[in-house]
Amino acid sequence: MTQDPLVVFTPSGKRGRVPAGTPVLAAARQLGVDLDSVCGGRGICSKCQVAPAFGDFAKHGIHSEPGALSEWNKVEARYHEKRGLAEGRRLGCQAQIMGDVVIDVPAGSQVHRQVVRKDATARAIAMDPATRLHFVEVGAPDMHEPTGDLERLERALKAQWGIAGIRAALPLLAQLQPALRKGDWRVTVALHRRAADAVPELVAIWPGLHEDGIFGLAIDLGSTTIAAHLTDLDTGAVVASAGIMNPQIRFGEDLMSRVSYAMMTPGGALEMTRSVREALSTLISEIAHEAKIDPALILEATFVCNPVMHHLLLGIDPVELGQAPFALATSSALDLGADELGLTSLPACAQVYLLPCIAGHVGADAAAVALSEQPGQSEDLVLVVDVGTNAEILLGDRERVLACSSPTGPAFEGAQISSGQRAAPGAIEAVRIDPGTKEPRLRVIGCPLWSDEPGFAEATAASGITGICGSGIIEAVAEMRIAGLLDAGGLIGSAEQTGSARSIPEGRTHAYVLHDGRADGGPLVTVTQGDIRAIQLAKSALYAGARLLMDTRGVDRVDRVVLAGAFGAHISPLHAMVLGMIPDVPLDKVSSAGNAAGTGARIALCSLAARRQIERDVHAITKVETAIEPRFQEHFVAANAIPHASDPFPELSRHVTLPDTRFNAHAEGGGRRRRRRG
Amino acid sequence: MTQDPLVVFTPSGKRGRVPAGTPVLAAARQLGVDLDSVCGGRGICSKCQVAPAFGDFAKHGIHSEPGALSEWNKVEARYHEKRGLAEGRRLGCQAQIMGDVVIDVPAGSQVHRQVVRKDATARAIAMDPATRLHFVEVGAPDMHEPTGDLERLERALKAQWGIAGIRAALPLLAQLQPALRKGDWRVTVALHRRAADAVPELVAIWPGLHEDGIFGLAIDLGSTTIAAHLTDLDTGAVVASAGIMNPQIRFGEDLMSRVSYAMMTPGGALEMTRSVREALSTLISEIAHEAKIDPALILEATFVCNPVMHHLLLGIDPVELGQAPFALATSSALDLGADELGLTSLPACAQVYLLPCIAGHVGADAAAVALSEQPGQSEDLVLVVDVGTNAEILLGDRERVLACSSPTGPAFEGAQISSGQRAAPGAIEAVRIDPGTKEPRLRVIGCPLWSDEPGFAEATAASGITGICGSGIIEAVAEMRIAGLLDAGGLIGSAEQTGSARSIPEGRTHAYVLHDGRADGGPLVTVTQGDIRAIQLAKSALYAGARLLMDTRGVDRVDRVVLAGAFGAHISPLHAMVLGMIPDVPLDKVSSAGNAAGTGARIALCSLAARRQIERDVHAITKVETAIEPRFQEHFVAANAIPHASDPFPELSRHVTLPDTRFNAHAEGGGRRRRRRG
Repeated sequence: MTQDPLVVFTPSGKRGRVPAGTPVLAAARQLGVDLDSVCGGRGICSKCQVAPAFGDFAKHGIHSEPGALSEWNKVEARYHEKRGLAEGRRLGCQAQIMGDVVIDVPAGSQVHRQVVRKDATARAIAMDPATRLHFVEVGAPDMHEPTGDLERLERALKAQWGIAGIRAALPLLAQLQPALRKGDWRVTVALHRRAADAVPELVAIWPGLHEDGIFGLAIDLGSTTIAAHLTDLDTGAVVASAGIMNPQIRFGEDLMSRVSYAMMTPGGALEMTRSVREALSTLISEIAHEAKIDPALILEATFVCNPVMHHLLLGIDPVELGQAPFALATSSALDLGADELGLTSLPACAQVYLLPCIAGHVGADAAAVALSEQPGQSEDLVLVVDVGTNAEILLGDRERVLACSSPTGPAFEGAQISSGQRAAPGAIEAVRIDPGTKEPRLRVIGCPLWSDEPGFAEATAASGITGICGSGIIEAVAEMRIAGLLDAGGLIGSAEQTGSARSIPEGRTHAYVLHDGRADGGPLVTVTQGDIRAIQLAKSALYAGARLLMDTRGVDRVDRVVLAGAFGAHISPLHAMVLGMIPDVPLDKVSSAGNAAGTGARIALCSLAARRQIERDVHAITKVETAIEPRFQEHFVAANAIPHASDPFPELSRHVTLPDTRFNAHAEGGGRRRRRRG
Repeated sequence: MTQDPLVVFTPSGKRGRVPAGTPVLAAARQLGVDLDSVCGGRGICSKCQVAPAFGDFAKHGIHSEPGALSEWNKVEARYHEKRGLAEGRRLGCQAQIMGDVVIDVPAGSQVHRQVVRKDATARAIAMDPATRLHFVEVGAPDMHEPTGDLERLERALKAQWGIAGIRAALPLLAQLQPALRKGDWRVTVALHRRAADAVPELVAIWPGLHEDGIFGLAIDLGSTTIAAHLTDLDTGAVVASAGIMNPQIRFGEDLMSRVSYAMMTPGGALEMTRSVREALSTLISEIAHEAKIDPALILEATFVCNPVMHHLLLGIDPVELGQAPFALATSSALDLGADELGLTSLPACAQVYLLPCIAGHVGADAAAVALSEQPGQSEDLVLVVDVGTNAEILLGDRERVLACSSPTGPAFEGAQISSGQRAAPGAIEAVRIDPGTKEPRLRVIGCPLWSDEPGFAEATAASGITGICGSGIIEAVAEMRIAGLLDAGGLIGSAEQTGSARSIPEGRTHAYVLHDGRADGGPLVTVTQGDIRAIQLAKSALYAGARLLMDTRGVDRVDRVVLAGAFGAHISPLHAMVLGMIPDVPLDKVSSAGNAAGTGARIALCSLAARRQIERDVHAITKVETAIEPRFQEHFVAANAIPHASDPFPELSRHVTLPDTRFNAHAEGGGRRRRRRG
């Protein structure tokens, strides 16, 4: 008796014997190998491409001859003629296994392919999308056996895909009959599952084989900015990114001003809900237009945001978040229809997923950072700070993860800064000040040169030097401190005290001139005493939040720090530490994670398994409420000094010695003002 | 050892021993006795009222003494003081069983109480509503154990009601926090289950105990009229009924004209969808206003309608229903949100159930008639005809049920009739013509007197005699046939041929004057030759449909006939048979079921079990498509004569002898015109 052929699939290593003549796709399904197919084995979608390997494979104990796969049949030949198959590739649904063979499933043919993040800390995401395409041939109606078209589609999905039962909302029901007839009873359906075992929802239908892909949006809805990443739901690739200012800013710069607006203004919450939903619709239209993608192909969106943004997006009055005990209306992850959120530029049946919130002040954005940075998987104790108008702070390792949110205000984003501006061409993004001459060197966005390098003036002529962005102000303040222009209390010295003519009087305080463009009709860009106070408030809140977590954990140092946030990648670790934004650690233990919250949104967009993971993980996170913790105020006040009134910074002092200047014996710290959260 | 007390519940007869001190409500739950409670045993809702019985109960083998129940406790006493408990009643949640006792659960305390229909054919509906109230005490938020309010509500429902998990749409999430706080963490929630084992949906929330009831609408959406019954979801009682014309009439009187309008007019289907949804919203507002019920308390609606109305209500282009093979977009029952249907006068979270369709021309209205009249439970062979613009016809017994739909047109509803009008005061609803004098007697809606009785003129002075309604035209035509004013071919004789001056010329044909009010400024109400033709078309379609079902079943007679439809109750069986609307059966075997489709909608509104039953039953019904069946045309032509060209009517001839007049040897039957469906 001849044995059935042995087939070994790589890279999975799964192996088994199948009867001669079994198509590769069927063998893969039988052996549990992840091999994609949209057309269900009709040889038209080419998603099941495989690369057979021939020769001796000692590792697998196989000798494979070219005849181990059947000759090209008509379907495969026609596909190759029309679309072209790469050298060495076969259609898994057509090629039959005739003898022992090793078959490689290339990444592009795997449903659960790995997507490697481009960020510094590369982490693979296994694709496990909630929305998938299925090509299906539906039976034509028969008057003598009357059934609805939907019921015949269901029958076909059951027979051809093993999918038992779907739901279809009215907008899809209205599209069903024309699509079936236009496609001559062959259609591609997009089915969305809210969970692996949930009844799939029909979210799109196209006549024939749909080949233009389907897309999703990962949206980071911040208090100040809204960022969206348009993502291919098949490959996980980001095809376009775009940002827009949150128009709610006109109702209040920080979160608590918006909560106050909702409390004080009848209909105020609704007004803010409408404004953010409109902005989202605009952003979605723009990003689709930019990527040249039909918005009708955007079938999903995931959202991360802080609790106030979360409630305002959902149309829930955030009043309870403005007062203890800061009760959320709901903390669970939410599955919604795009229509429920009034996202008019998405198809009505597009599905929306909101990550879970952790607590009244620790939102889905913090959950997203946890999903992206996985502090709970860290061997050493890691502090993750996601810097924004509100900072999300996580501290943890395999043993335990703690989280809090801290009201930094928008200063780190360049707002509430006298010469502040968004990170755009012309904005000062890096600053170095010579401690001897007290003269600054600058770099502006859009030009790689420093201002003392030849060609700088020409290169920046078009953009000009227009202001300071978030990372620029951090560097400027830190450099002023290093150069002795600013004392530990945060006071800018006068020209006499500092010996620099760039210290100019401004009312009863002083400002430091970074750039004077007035001769050319440009602005005078200075760092004022008010700017210093705003930065002090922000950095004190950040540091105090971190320290509160450390207290709760019972430690007074961390092993490493991850800086995340929209400009996390641009903050110099040295300067952050000079300012005292973060606790003292070796400088090489400070890394950047880019927009971790946005990455968390992307991960959730690409993977149902990741959604379930973060829904579990948030329950294990210890929430620390900064607003009611007396120690937070103490830490906040102590952190007002630059870098700190009492905590030592031994690692920092290996790299820089801060002058012990003191411009005013009675210098008043900025931290004693009563602050509102934000 | 003393035995635990024995408790016997009536009327269920369920019995068992429970430890002394067990509250009656707890004992009922333990023994599976249907005893209602909204407040969950807190002694505030009084839904669990019981009537203990004392004495000797030989039947149950029990002797029960007054001390068998505990004395009134404070809660019960306070309830009695504030609200009053009827003599002999106790609160089941407070009264404890102390000795052997017989406890009667009055109908009002049963969840699954029987609601007896008022119609002639009394049939009990067991209440099994999809939406129920639950009073619940929710834990207050705790900053140190942060959870959302929804999650705490879920926890409370689990602990207090054993309900594991609910869903809450955004409009309810937005109401949750204010309701919890206003009710001091006690709220009443309305939970809707689409199926007995489905996750309940939160559809309403009120602070504290909600005592104003909840309501549902049973809606019969007809081509010509829309009828709604506002129903108490607790008792099943109809608290108000109202009707409105279907405004789609302006797009076409019958179904096929509306399908044509959708085909010929871009946006036409959408326009009709909008118009019917607006009318429904108006109707709902009106009925709520009439019943003095806050529309926010209307949490459910069930719809029955024919397939074209079904698709237009759902926003689905009905074009496929205008051509073979008459494919429905979906035939299954549908669960929807009121917001999906744009029913703006209902709360956004109100739930809508559409009964299943049977086939492309046999809709949810036919399913509703089947649910109401249960032909499949009949011992003898019953023909059910639901008369409307489209007639739904069912034939069956325990062995098999067949169904078809027949395009009668709106003549039976008084439309397309020269003097036709809606059934309203002033409309002629009954007619008798003296075969000797050929003079008519009339009865009009709003007056119980016949026109030859004293006082008729005075009694009708206010309304006048304004036209003929559906039942009036049927009687008029039948009486004209009996009196020899109309021949078997449907031709009205001239004054010379009939010997009656009431036969007046009208063009080349004749009309019969029923009432001449012109002297008093009123109308001339006649039955014209055109009216006769319209009635002939309608009745031929009805009879042909019934015959087609009889052919398919292989019978040439039925045992009984049920006349249903908006005016089914008003049709005289004799006159219906003279016209040949229905097959010949003994007159006492013709009964009326009132608005059977509307009753089916009410049954589905009150009972989840009934929804599941009709969803199963429709699959067992044999659908017969009249539009493609050549025999339908043959039957239609033969049925054009009054009562019929060839079928004998022996039962009819026992009651009346029809004159064998023949006014024109070349009389042309009306049935040969090519007809459109509708």
